[in-house]
Amino acid sequence: MTNGQATLSKTKGCKSAFVCVVLYARNLSVNIHLPEKLVSVLVVGSLALDSIETPFGSVHDAIGGSATYISVAASYFVNPIRVVGVVGGDFPRSAITFLEDRKVDLDGLQVIKNGKTFRWSGRYHYDLNERDTLSTDLNVFEKFDPEIPEKYRKTRCVCLGNIDPVLQLKVLDQMDNPRLVVCDTMNYWIDRKKTDLQKTLKRINILILNDSEARLLSQEPNLIKAGRVIRSMGPRVLIIKKGEHGALLLTDQMTFSAPAYPMENIFDPTGAGDSFAGGFVGWLARTDDTSEENLKRAVIYGSTLASFCVEKFSVDGLKDLTYLRIQDRFREFRELSRFEDI
Amino acid sequence: MTNGQATLSKTKGCKSAFVCVVLYARNLSVNIHLPEKLVSVLVVGSLALDSIETPFGSVHDAIGGSATYISVAASYFVNPIRVVGVVGGDFPRSAITFLEDRKVDLDGLQVIKNGKTFRWSGRYHYDLNERDTLSTDLNVFEKFDPEIPEKYRKTRCVCLGNIDPVLQLKVLDQMDNPRLVVCDTMNYWIDRKKTDLQKTLKRINILILNDSEARLLSQEPNLIKAGRVIRSMGPRVLIIKKGEHGALLLTDQMTFSAPAYPMENIFDPTGAGDSFAGGFVGWLARTDDTSEENLKRAVIYGSTLASFCVEKFSVDGLKDLTYLRIQDRFREFRELSRFEDI
Repeated sequence: MTNGQATLSKTKGCKSAFVCVVLYARNLSVNIHLPEKLVSVLVVGSLALDSIETPFGSVHDAIGGSATYISVAASYFVNPIRVVGVVGGDFPRSAITFLEDRKVDLDGLQVIKNGKTFRWSGRYHYDLNERDTLSTDLNVFEKFDPEIPEKYRKTRCVCLGNIDPVLQLKVLDQMDNPRLVVCDTMNYWIDRKKTDLQKTLKRINILILNDSEARLLSQEPNLIKAGRVIRSMGPRVLIIKKGEHGALLLTDQMTFSAPAYPMENIFDPTGAGDSFAGGFVGWLARTDDTSEENLKRAVIYGSTLASFCVEKFSVDGLKDLTYLRIQDRFREFRELSRFEDI
Repeated sequence: MTNGQATLSKTKGCKSAFVCVVLYARNLSVNIHLPEKLVSVLVVGSLALDSIETPFGSVHDAIGGSATYISVAASYFVNPIRVVGVVGGDFPRSAITFLEDRKVDLDGLQVIKNGKTFRWSGRYHYDLNERDTLSTDLNVFEKFDPEIPEKYRKTRCVCLGNIDPVLQLKVLDQMDNPRLVVCDTMNYWIDRKKTDLQKTLKRINILILNDSEARLLSQEPNLIKAGRVIRSMGPRVLIIKKGEHGALLLTDQMTFSAPAYPMENIFDPTGAGDSFAGGFVGWLARTDDTSEENLKRAVIYGSTLASFCVEKFSVDGLKDLTYLRIQDRFREFRELSRFEDI
């Protein structure tokens, strides 16, 4: 760690390739197995104020945005998380404090004092699988032009949140040879900026999208075929999120099917996909290991953080987690899909 | 085995609770681990002639029906399979021969010489997830009144294919205390015969249905909650099939999420659900073990047989399988969802 916020101390008797460490970070003071190399993550995306209605309640101007969810989820695995984004003067001090408490480095956050923060408002239907966007006010996000601070440019791991692919390219242009680039996108950009998106795809390692977006991008209804088509566009690794049906991890050599956590009460699906991305990239950064076996684990950590996210409104489900709770749920995922050979 | 079609010989040095046996049945002459107790399965359902159009081709008057698919799939695990159903004088001799070759006992098959076999005709859409029924001619099936031959009544394992729940009850009324009753149903019966279906549900052990049917029966969009509601109606164990997303196995103690086999080319989805039921019940009958661990394996065997089924038209995908091919695919399923703990 470069910032001294965590102290690593080697302990004897642990498994090969791992060292037992004690990490004295906030909410993380437990003995855990950690790999030797820790790296930070650069996150670029939106920071927003969301107003959300679900059948279970509503919130107004709650903290949201892709960069927010990704950062908070990833912060349980590595820190600091370096955020590049933009907010207005109305972005609440409490939100800043919350992110700083999670060891999110906000030196790359542009604050437009006389501008307003990006606002989104939506209503979820009874089954929570569909939502209506009630309003989208881009505000200061409309002219967002990501500028990567000099000290961020050597960050080895980059997570491009769901923003205009032109901006995603601008970010990559400023980076100094990142080792791992994980990228999210959505139907809006596939429909409107396909050519730019295709340029982005050529420069990333891992793409995360959902099943309908995969079908839209590939023009192929069969998800396995869609995966082949999309991977031929650039990313070596593709993750297709399927909501209540889990996720697929597709590489040249492997298809991995991750289960969904069986949830009876989903309070607010907002941010689930971004929390997935954060948990996924956080685990990869923490372990500095992109082997297929570890990519599978990263998908499970992504699913784990997404499952915590939807249990409460806004980012509340990602507050006050501990590494032990995350591990317990990781193991529940394992139990969920494990079966014995005969 | 009561009919002497298989010879069991114990071999030393095998795992506890299992004995190594050599099963000299057709297509099954390999050394495999088998439990000591083998039991037959009674299957009640439709035998039909299907005319199917898919984007990949079409067939006319091909062998189909729930009892057919269930029997053939289950026949790879136990024999004889005992079928109770009805066909007309036009049911082809080749279909009878095929079933007999698979050691399906047809003594319970009613043949109405001057009647016509149940015919179904359907067309699948491009993405194969939806189909239009073009015609349904019940013919002799309209007056089907299942009569269980005396020699079948002590069969310990019963699989009730997707027929009128009134008929399912009639079957159970004739059985002599079966140990395991597995039941399939569909939206048609949930809509039209819910009261009768609820009576059936009180007398079965395991219900198999798909996700939309589970939502319809429970009036609950969340599948985990739906599972709880449906299990409170009777069946201790519920399986919710989710097509390309795999299947859920739900019990009081456990949620198991089975992956779907990643298929790029599905030729004909007809019979996939019935093949699932056949593989599932066949494995349970073969092992005489309904522990939760073995129920999981049975779900994977069901998924395995369903995956073979959809690779070809009609029952062609279930012809000429071997136990080794089935085992190989079972292990592919394991690879598909397996990940290592950290």
